[in-house]
Amino acid sequence: MPITITAFERSPDRGKGLARDMRVRWALEEVGQPYEVRLLSFEAMKEPAHLALHPFGQIPTYEDGELTLFESGAIVFHIAEHHEGLLPDDANARARAITWMFAALSTMEPPILDREVTRLLERGESWYKQRLSAVEDRIRKRLGELSNRLGDADWLDGEFSVGDLQMVSVLLRLKGSALLDEFPNLSAYVARGEARPAYKRAFAAQLAVFHAT
Amino acid sequence: MPITITAFERSPDRGKGLARDMRVRWALEEVGQPYEVRLLSFEAMKEPAHLALHPFGQIPTYEDGELTLFESGAIVFHIAEHHEGLLPDDANARARAITWMFAALSTMEPPILDREVTRLLERGESWYKQRLSAVEDRIRKRLGELSNRLGDADWLDGEFSVGDLQMVSVLLRLKGSALLDEFPNLSAYVARGEARPAYKRAFAAQLAVFHAT
Repeated sequence: MPITITAFERSPDRGKGLARDMRVRWALEEVGQPYEVRLLSFEAMKEPAHLALHPFGQIPTYEDGELTLFESGAIVFHIAEHHEGLLPDDANARARAITWMFAALSTMEPPILDREVTRLLERGESWYKQRLSAVEDRIRKRLGELSNRLGDADWLDGEFSVGDLQMVSVLLRLKGSALLDEFPNLSAYVARGEARPAYKRAFAAQLAVFHAT
Repeated sequence: MPITITAFERSPDRGKGLARDMRVRWALEEVGQPYEVRLLSFEAMKEPAHLALHPFGQIPTYEDGELTLFESGAIVFHIAEHHEGLLPDDANARARAITWMFAALSTMEPPILDREVTRLLERGESWYKQRLSAVEDRIRKRLGELSNRLGDADWLDGEFSVGDLQMVSVLLRLKGSALLDEFPNLSAYVARGEARPAYKRAFAAQLAVFHAT
């Protein structure tokens, strides 16, 4: 039985690669693991059969024999732990790569997601501009700190790792916004991630779903 | 050299145990590891010496010999990986415990943090009530899904694990709000976490810092 993941039948981002299955596809491509994809409608995601796999009724899930996982962060880490290519061998370097993975998800992503929610749900409100500006200031502060740490290195700590995979994935949510352009080394970092062959294969695969349906 | 963590010299929550060092203290107590604490003022957290340890200028950090980590999620997981008591031995059960850890940090915590930011920064704004209500609806949806999954079990997946440690820590941010009271099984779950001897020792230790300074 191959690894099976779930993804949106019709991605809300129209194939821009921001749905969370993209991170799992990218990780699987980095480690050279084949996988199958089960596509779900928004209705199917809320049905008992899917809620048994994912208590929050979201995508992606991951099925490998007896094991079922949810949460893209957990799935990507599981892939990194069980296959060569996304975690260094040295114990301390491994712990630092894991730290960057958590930094991406717990420190960088929340204000970036807040910006998306604000733009999606509050655009018609009287406070929209004022709130958006406050949220963007919070993001800018974090980007500045990240930019200072990255400096002119290619990746956050030595070789490309699961920490970079998650950080690039989070920063990609800002692509095309002026925010990322304010930090040229971060823009270049994101571009290095997108240039990886594994990223390109994963991106093409999720885009093909959008065009097929 | 003992493990050394950093914590606020004066915790902004006045010792309620919501600062992120609490989760690290709790994990260290669960696995029976002694540790030392270096207290930092808000000024010291922004100085180069601390930024070298923590690029985002926050607490906690974790130092053990040559290894320095930041991000409480990463530190708690590092402790769980290297000591008995927070991760099951069975490989699949271990992966599921890790999944709940990510679910706590990536799915449950962002809207709960958004509520805190809203209450802290937007109380004087004309939109305050409307936005708070929208944020609380998002939290309520997640709590309902979590409550359905937990059912009448003691912990999220078998024995107490690092997944429960993080989930209880996240839900504790809602303590005293009517939101948590709407889900009696989640209130009882949080109370079970607080009743653990390791939690009590960690809580007492961080409270002692607040009273001493």
